[in-house]
Amino acid sequence: MEFWSFPPAYDNTYFPPPESRYWFPQRETMAASAREKAILDRLRRVCRHAYEHSAFYRRRWNDCGFHPDHLRSLEHFEDKVPVITKKELRESQTKSPPFGEYLCVPESEICRVHGTSGTTGRPTAFAISRNDWNAIANAHARVMWGMGMRPGDMICVAAIFSLYMGSWGAMAGAERLGAKVFPFGAGAPGMSIRCAQWLHTMRPTGFYGTPTYALHLAQTAQSEGLNPREFGLKYMFFSGEPGASIPGVRNRIEDLFGAKVFDAGSMAEMSPWMNVAGSAQTEGMLCWQDIVYTEVCDPKSMHRVAYGQRGTPVYTHLERTSQPMIRLVSGDLTLWVDGPTPCGRTYPRLPQGIFGRIDDMFTIRGENVYPSEIDAALNETPGYGGEHQIVISREAAMDELLLRVEANAEIFLEDGQGVERFRADVSRRIQKLLGLRTTAEILRKGTLPRTDFKARRVIDDRAVFREMHAQVNSDVLP
Amino acid sequence: MEFWSFPPAYDNTYFPPPESRYWFPQRETMAASAREKAILDRLRRVCRHAYEHSAFYRRRWNDCGFHPDHLRSLEHFEDKVPVITKKELRESQTKSPPFGEYLCVPESEICRVHGTSGTTGRPTAFAISRNDWNAIANAHARVMWGMGMRPGDMICVAAIFSLYMGSWGAMAGAERLGAKVFPFGAGAPGMSIRCAQWLHTMRPTGFYGTPTYALHLAQTAQSEGLNPREFGLKYMFFSGEPGASIPGVRNRIEDLFGAKVFDAGSMAEMSPWMNVAGSAQTEGMLCWQDIVYTEVCDPKSMHRVAYGQRGTPVYTHLERTSQPMIRLVSGDLTLWVDGPTPCGRTYPRLPQGIFGRIDDMFTIRGENVYPSEIDAALNETPGYGGEHQIVISREAAMDELLLRVEANAEIFLEDGQGVERFRADVSRRIQKLLGLRTTAEILRKGTLPRTDFKARRVIDDRAVFREMHAQVNSDVLP
Repeated sequence: MEFWSFPPAYDNTYFPPPESRYWFPQRETMAASAREKAILDRLRRVCRHAYEHSAFYRRRWNDCGFHPDHLRSLEHFEDKVPVITKKELRESQTKSPPFGEYLCVPESEICRVHGTSGTTGRPTAFAISRNDWNAIANAHARVMWGMGMRPGDMICVAAIFSLYMGSWGAMAGAERLGAKVFPFGAGAPGMSIRCAQWLHTMRPTGFYGTPTYALHLAQTAQSEGLNPREFGLKYMFFSGEPGASIPGVRNRIEDLFGAKVFDAGSMAEMSPWMNVAGSAQTEGMLCWQDIVYTEVCDPKSMHRVAYGQRGTPVYTHLERTSQPMIRLVSGDLTLWVDGPTPCGRTYPRLPQGIFGRIDDMFTIRGENVYPSEIDAALNETPGYGGEHQIVISREAAMDELLLRVEANAEIFLEDGQGVERFRADVSRRIQKLLGLRTTAEILRKGTLPRTDFKARRVIDDRAVFREMHAQVNSDVLP
Repeated sequence: MEFWSFPPAYDNTYFPPPESRYWFPQRETMAASAREKAILDRLRRVCRHAYEHSAFYRRRWNDCGFHPDHLRSLEHFEDKVPVITKKELRESQTKSPPFGEYLCVPESEICRVHGTSGTTGRPTAFAISRNDWNAIANAHARVMWGMGMRPGDMICVAAIFSLYMGSWGAMAGAERLGAKVFPFGAGAPGMSIRCAQWLHTMRPTGFYGTPTYALHLAQTAQSEGLNPREFGLKYMFFSGEPGASIPGVRNRIEDLFGAKVFDAGSMAEMSPWMNVAGSAQTEGMLCWQDIVYTEVCDPKSMHRVAYGQRGTPVYTHLERTSQPMIRLVSGDLTLWVDGPTPCGRTYPRLPQGIFGRIDDMFTIRGENVYPSEIDAALNETPGYGGEHQIVISREAAMDELLLRVEANAEIFLEDGQGVERFRADVSRRIQKLLGLRTTAEILRKGTLPRTDFKARRVIDDRAVFREMHAQVNSDVLP
């Protein structure tokens, strides 16, 4: 197997022949059973490294009677090795600042410090060693090669460069790939207009960002009189949100930019986070099992579900020595399948990508609903104006679902009839999806706030009640 | 001389002994005359490279009868080689997009694309080759070593990662230095509070940003109940603004953070832009002449002024093959001196740093005034609240200078007397500096808008008149 060692030892001058579909033909197309054998052996080594260098893992495993040397099978791994959660990582860093008791290399080897954006509570710091950073770059270059990008491509990274790992990881991959990296960033006021202008001037072939931002950028470009199709982009790869695997969203981005869209991305903690990612021939995401070992698990038992079933991904690093994650629960939701893939890679596949989080799911009249499913349905509705809000309320005994949906200008042309048709179309599609009636409020395009990062579309009913309450109370005052 | 070749060929495993004051003892402390001889030889090679690979340079030099092979002396260089301006670079890129006729390497060698932020007109794109990027990283690591930073230091880069070259260059240097790089960025809403919290948690030893941002960050931290001195920073290095060489500003930052402040930075086009930068023992900036050859010139003749005189820096790359800049006029203003330096480096020195731009200077009653001088005077005034505006108007025949100056809360305690004392103090200092009376309006701290990038403090009088006019007209309406 090509460059399959622990610790990783990649040769940065290695490139496959330009016409090769695979970066590492053997690692990518070997029989799944042979790979699983190799993974088991690697898991022993990774676990031994963690056991020796991390009080965090040693204590947990001693408590439950697991020792890396006794690891017998992948079933044994899921039986004996407890999952870890982001909360436990945070606690370990509070106890042992700044990098926690799971830093498994000397501090002198660390070259990069990143972290979670930490909107609530103490954020988590990521410490990445020089050699691991190089392994991340190699893994990402390899996945990007599989999408079709090649040395010499100019790749624009249009996501904020700060605590968000997405942009840094995309950049590392593009550098190792031998691309011309154009790290434009995002997030500061006025940047989207300039990004559109620069794309128009520089004509990069590759683009990385979030799906929400790509849609926002297309609108910004159009409002500046620029046609995003004329940017000449060929490859657009995304992470941070489910969008790029949702047919409605994916098709819309592909249509707006005339480029091929790829979905990617597990978790910042799991960098190389492109361990789940699509390829030129295979939609959705492949689980690149020889980079990070993914188990799609039942959220209660934390045992793997059968292929064809839904579950939450549990990830284990196979090529990280600094802060290796061993059975980190993502809390995301996906469906995995096995069997032949169009690209010939012998990895399990997430055909719908990662379509939500356990936390995002809401239950309405007994139905489990993921916001990404509503997003997908609206994006397939003709006349959809690009943004919506989902308002859930419980005024009486029954849940109420209100959708506030933007429609394009032409919907408003026919003196109310177009709006009524659009409203009926939306309601029909949502009824088909969720099996329940919904009230749709139709808004003009541009009414709802846009974000240049990740969309937040579900409105907590209690917040709405508070606002309504405040409004009612303020109405009685002058 | 250590690693003195063209094209540059640095060994990335090289480090001086930890106790060495110099990264390259020979290059940094050799007799200036011997260095000039080496520079002359290098100029021949750089010019030959540009002549051979760039229609832009070849045409200009053919027109004026200069050929690199005939370069005899540094005097001959300044006599015969015409300066280039940013405007000409922009025009060349318009004519030959995207990188202009001065790209002197094949496009396949480019690894990074950056650009000017281009607030007006067509922005300029920077194309940097892989080998040049490595040379930039080596140059910056070397300068940062001279400031005192060492492998293992954690360095927080707190400036926007986008088209601004400052952050990327600081990061490249920190990486090559073997530091733990913490690329926090800046510029998006809400980032300053989080930056303060992260500095408090992570305790990096090094910090890069703009002086304006450091002051803003200190205020933000204090308003969050955090003491910037407790961040434990040891080294703070700056570019993008004159502040770090202005005693009032430098002392204020050093006092707020309890760290040593360093000034650095020529121009983005000149990356490695740390070619002018201070050292642990030497305040202001050294001209690291073996990285970039700096001539401080008379803005009219474009010949070097004598040491001890003011002029505008004209820069020439000695270690860049992609888009090498040969006699690029900065438009900045500085004063250079020679003679022994406290650190023992035999470079010319800019004791006051780069204190303004020709464009920034304004003339009031016949006096040339640089906004940075007013900034310096106010920063030395006890009770100064941290922000000000300079309003110039010409209501009658005479120019009027109005300063809007913030004062700290204690100034307002004594029922008007404190304010009057502060106002008189400001007026006295400005009179001493500029030789003219000024009207000072005293404002409460926090009244004026803050920026998290570079301060813009001079208000165009016509704008003020327009606003006043609009106000007067609107007053007659209901």
